[in-house]
Amino acid sequence: MSLPPGILYGIGVGPGDPELLTIKALRLLKAAPVVFTPVARAGARSLARSIVEKYLEPSRQQIVELVFDMHDEHEGQAMRWHANARTIADSLASGTNAVFLTEGDPMLYSTFVHVARALAAQHPDVKIVPVSGISAVHAAAAAAGVPLADGDERLAVLPATYEGERLRDVLETFDTVVLLKVASVFDSVLDMLEQLGIVEGAILVTRCGWPEEQVVIDVRTLRGQRLDYFSTLIVRRNP
Amino acid sequence: MSLPPGILYGIGVGPGDPELLTIKALRLLKAAPVVFTPVARAGARSLARSIVEKYLEPSRQQIVELVFDMHDEHEGQAMRWHANARTIADSLASGTNAVFLTEGDPMLYSTFVHVARALAAQHPDVKIVPVSGISAVHAAAAAAGVPLADGDERLAVLPATYEGERLRDVLETFDTVVLLKVASVFDSVLDMLEQLGIVEGAILVTRCGWPEEQVVIDVRTLRGQRLDYFSTLIVRRNP
Repeated sequence: MSLPPGILYGIGVGPGDPELLTIKALRLLKAAPVVFTPVARAGARSLARSIVEKYLEPSRQQIVELVFDMHDEHEGQAMRWHANARTIADSLASGTNAVFLTEGDPMLYSTFVHVARALAAQHPDVKIVPVSGISAVHAAAAAAGVPLADGDERLAVLPATYEGERLRDVLETFDTVVLLKVASVFDSVLDMLEQLGIVEGAILVTRCGWPEEQVVIDVRTLRGQRLDYFSTLIVRRNP
Repeated sequence: MSLPPGILYGIGVGPGDPELLTIKALRLLKAAPVVFTPVARAGARSLARSIVEKYLEPSRQQIVELVFDMHDEHEGQAMRWHANARTIADSLASGTNAVFLTEGDPMLYSTFVHVARALAAQHPDVKIVPVSGISAVHAAAAAAGVPLADGDERLAVLPATYEGERLRDVLETFDTVVLLKVASVFDSVLDMLEQLGIVEGAILVTRCGWPEEQVVIDVRTLRGQRLDYFSTLIVRRNP
């Protein structure tokens, strides 16, 4: 008779501040014999791990880095999800639980979603439980001190990959628009905000939740500058 | 010489589960001599307070209920924000800090935004610090086990008050749409989802984070039923 497999908890560790973990995430992290942590390349630093480093106990916990090279071609990525899912399933097969660390929240632009999908497809008997974390959307709003939405307002959240006209449409119809990882397209977004006359309702937050966090109120001063990869722009139509 | 006023922390207590507070929120809550908690009417139960009840120590903390009657006419509401802001300012004037409890996240459809605005206008010397919490948006996605957004997808968050054609527009252009407090308009939303052929990508979560939480996969079974006020609908175009 074989034991039922362990549970995989996908825990959101928040945007950077170790205090922004939930009590539940911390409890599950401390109780887990195995901790999976994603890295972009072999040997690279895991951002999610660095956030929770002080809670880890490598003397009694097995810390396993899983490589997710987001620059692989499509087929290579699929193979990686597959291989990583198998590594996790093998670990759970002994009946012990594990956690998978994820920056921010596990359901929003997260590696965890892919891991969970591959794991569910290959090993339908494994139980997967996401545990919410504070996303950059909420943390940036708190840092900037601006509401995401109030009353009957509407909020849109967009990734760094959006097209000109569709972005304009969203900026014209939503009360608040949060643009994540905006660095690579910042100047063109700035042009559009100026054309729409809403640049004064925009605030940029970089490295939210980290000691080097910055909040920039007048985003026009950032034109032409090289912005940090972790830059979040919040645009309020009626600030 | 007068002391500088204390700091007001607006802390998000999450959607219902006391374990979904952040470590930071719990630390600030325990350290606060004064805890402000919103109630809808005098004598009513404070939902935010009930979430953190087990962390409170009324023997050494002053728990102050503030009434925010959301059904007051506009002018009555403005007077309430004003009066409540003064109560808070008076408390902070002694130099001690206080926390203001808020369900979910303090920057998303929260009483705190109004309190902070009134307080900043009347008492610009008071320091106000929002502390993020898990919102129903993230908690419902975790409960339902569906991603909010992945890759280049876009997310929209709408309150219960949205109009027919504008809602259709959002449902047609966003990958994920989260409708909060959807109970009062549920049947008409269901009609629209069926017309658009996306009803199978919809999941309803009621009382998210509470012991009585429910996740309904086939939302068509809910037609004509009286839904709980705390019902969140997540619609994925491509589930």
